[in-house]
Amino acid sequence: MKLEIDQERLARELDELGGISAEPAPVVTRVVYTEADRRAREYVKNLCAGAGLTIREDAVGNTFARWTGSKPELAPVGTGSHIDAIPNAGRFDGTVGVLGGLAAIRALQRAGVRPRRSIELLIFTSEEPTRFGIGCFGSRLLAGRLSASAGDSLKDPEGESLNEARSSAGFAGELADVRLPQGYYSAFVELHIEQGPILEQRNLDIGIVTAIAAPATLRIDIEGEGGHAGAVLMPWRRDAFLAAAEIALVVETSAKSTGAPDTVGTTGVCDIFPRAVNSIPSRAHMEIDVRDIDGTRRDAVLAQIEREAVQIAARRDVKLSREVLNADPPAICDPGVIEVLDEACGAQGATHEFMISRAYHDSLFMSLVAPTSMLFIPCRGGVSHRPDEYSSPGAVARGALVLAEALRRLAER
Amino acid sequence: MKLEIDQERLARELDELGGISAEPAPVVTRVVYTEADRRAREYVKNLCAGAGLTIREDAVGNTFARWTGSKPELAPVGTGSHIDAIPNAGRFDGTVGVLGGLAAIRALQRAGVRPRRSIELLIFTSEEPTRFGIGCFGSRLLAGRLSASAGDSLKDPEGESLNEARSSAGFAGELADVRLPQGYYSAFVELHIEQGPILEQRNLDIGIVTAIAAPATLRIDIEGEGGHAGAVLMPWRRDAFLAAAEIALVVETSAKSTGAPDTVGTTGVCDIFPRAVNSIPSRAHMEIDVRDIDGTRRDAVLAQIEREAVQIAARRDVKLSREVLNADPPAICDPGVIEVLDEACGAQGATHEFMISRAYHDSLFMSLVAPTSMLFIPCRGGVSHRPDEYSSPGAVARGALVLAEALRRLAER
Repeated sequence: MKLEIDQERLARELDELGGISAEPAPVVTRVVYTEADRRAREYVKNLCAGAGLTIREDAVGNTFARWTGSKPELAPVGTGSHIDAIPNAGRFDGTVGVLGGLAAIRALQRAGVRPRRSIELLIFTSEEPTRFGIGCFGSRLLAGRLSASAGDSLKDPEGESLNEARSSAGFAGELADVRLPQGYYSAFVELHIEQGPILEQRNLDIGIVTAIAAPATLRIDIEGEGGHAGAVLMPWRRDAFLAAAEIALVVETSAKSTGAPDTVGTTGVCDIFPRAVNSIPSRAHMEIDVRDIDGTRRDAVLAQIEREAVQIAARRDVKLSREVLNADPPAICDPGVIEVLDEACGAQGATHEFMISRAYHDSLFMSLVAPTSMLFIPCRGGVSHRPDEYSSPGAVARGALVLAEALRRLAER
Repeated sequence: MKLEIDQERLARELDELGGISAEPAPVVTRVVYTEADRRAREYVKNLCAGAGLTIREDAVGNTFARWTGSKPELAPVGTGSHIDAIPNAGRFDGTVGVLGGLAAIRALQRAGVRPRRSIELLIFTSEEPTRFGIGCFGSRLLAGRLSASAGDSLKDPEGESLNEARSSAGFAGELADVRLPQGYYSAFVELHIEQGPILEQRNLDIGIVTAIAAPATLRIDIEGEGGHAGAVLMPWRRDAFLAAAEIALVVETSAKSTGAPDTVGTTGVCDIFPRAVNSIPSRAHMEIDVRDIDGTRRDAVLAQIEREAVQIAARRDVKLSREVLNADPPAICDPGVIEVLDEACGAQGATHEFMISRAYHDSLFMSLVAPTSMLFIPCRGGVSHRPDEYSSPGAVARGALVLAEALRRLAER
């Protein structure tokens, strides 16, 4: 029984899905519950229906496409990823795990496999935190790590609530009902681009993920005093943006100060108010991301940033408010699933290495409800979250092939 | 012949004009050629028509409301200011000079004055640089200090050209035709809030302006390298925002380094791209304002900022492009007009002091085509460009009264 991925079809589907964007190609911008997200969901669901999968959507739009096994009463094997994309992103982040997962199922079907356990493809809602400020929104709810009341209170920057947004995208029902029961899946595997340069540099086909780093997100709001840029002399100023600028530099030095290469800190958002060349900034809003594979070290960096930010605010006489929006523990992947992925690489002749994931994935939360691991494929230059993000059709197909082999084995266990 | 300002009416009109805003009261946001700007223009033109003034508008919407004198062949006396407002501004900046100018004309009419020279009230288009990045747009064109070709190439942040914007606001014709001939006005006086704390602190009614500081505007664009906030390790980063943060702090230290209190430097705009918490900023756009009453000292600070910015960019391996958008010379006000303003204060019993203007005004450009000075009135706390900007009805009326007295005298000269 030889498994074969239809490489051309998979590449074409990735292209077509990449073309569904709020901005012209090659830029992919697909923010949750927008028109582009809606069209992308329709595109993927049509493909799933074409493969004979049974589709279910939950109250936030997490989508489950099931290929029923010969023992449908057994817990299914899960695979999947996300199709939302941050502004100005590329075509592979997330989508490889969704369309590659579907390609793996099709390969098993073509090879005449009849799986014992059902195999279920998941499309997670809003892995990216773009709109509601919280990453892995869908999988977080599936794992019971976001309370329904916290979810209900989320708003986007335009003030639209999560509930309004999901309802206008056609998703209704209680957030509390999204949570999956423990044991729902016997195993979960997510295929994803590496988003780092290691596989490319070492010329390897596959990375098997043993641990997933988790970010902490720190929101800082600064309130100083505005005024006319010509009229208020320097010693009298309480410029909110200058405090923010100092804090951004502290984020950098704090992340570097651990000496560990795995500690990273980023100020990805810094909005100035009123944002006029002749006005002293009266307010600044910052969103800061700190991550590490070592949760204790990460939290120490976070604490250092907060401590220094408070000192900067005091020295500049500006008001500072801060909130840690999420600080999830890193995940250790399941040894049994890792072993199956190792065997699958061997069976399909894929070179591989064990590695950790520095980026954040829905698997971080799936690991809380199912034995979980991830398969990484190389991406050019380690680049992601940019329009020039790229994995070759061959690399994607090899990833899907190893995934197919792994799903076949996991479905028999 | 006693001059009297209708203080209640003037306060009411300032309130009504303040209510014409893109945002709910007390916030005034009235950006040039927007719906709020258009409604504010209509409001003021109706009041001018009610006072029997003859209205003319030029190709960019500079508005001239003339009270014809007994010798209409003589060059008129000008007064006026602007009604546009930056986002999140207040009710007095600019508007006091327009509605106060009109109140002064009404007071002269009520007192039975028949001026020898015509008196013309000007409403300048886009004193604020909000939309097209260039301050004193209308008066700059009136003074011939913005070439028609440079004006034609202006675009707002949404990519709409100046010509599209003015045409959709109903203003047509050649930019080159806006320029006023030398000698068009025999004198020009602008009434304005101080935007500084001196008059309030010294309990004075009026400031007579002897010089106007001029800003230089520096645009800096930084291009680094984006990427996933989790995946790109700290030593490999080329973060555009961190370079911008360092440059903003250099603006502050450079402005402070002259030792002169009159040197000020402000980074009022700093936009990050792509602006996502989990993305390393790949680009940053900064708009920096540096001003001084000493043009040489100002330009030295500007040069220091540029020099250090280049060094920061080199050290961080990011690409920097920069452009000085405008660097106008400061203005010295006309001794003859200053003398009349001094006499007018005396005649109306207003306490006063001579002072310089640290803020930028249309009078900076009017001084290039006419003998010019300004009258300042106190504003609370020296605050402007904020919703809590405030001058009392009495202070505004006293300013308008001195202006009326000055216009009467200038019209007879």
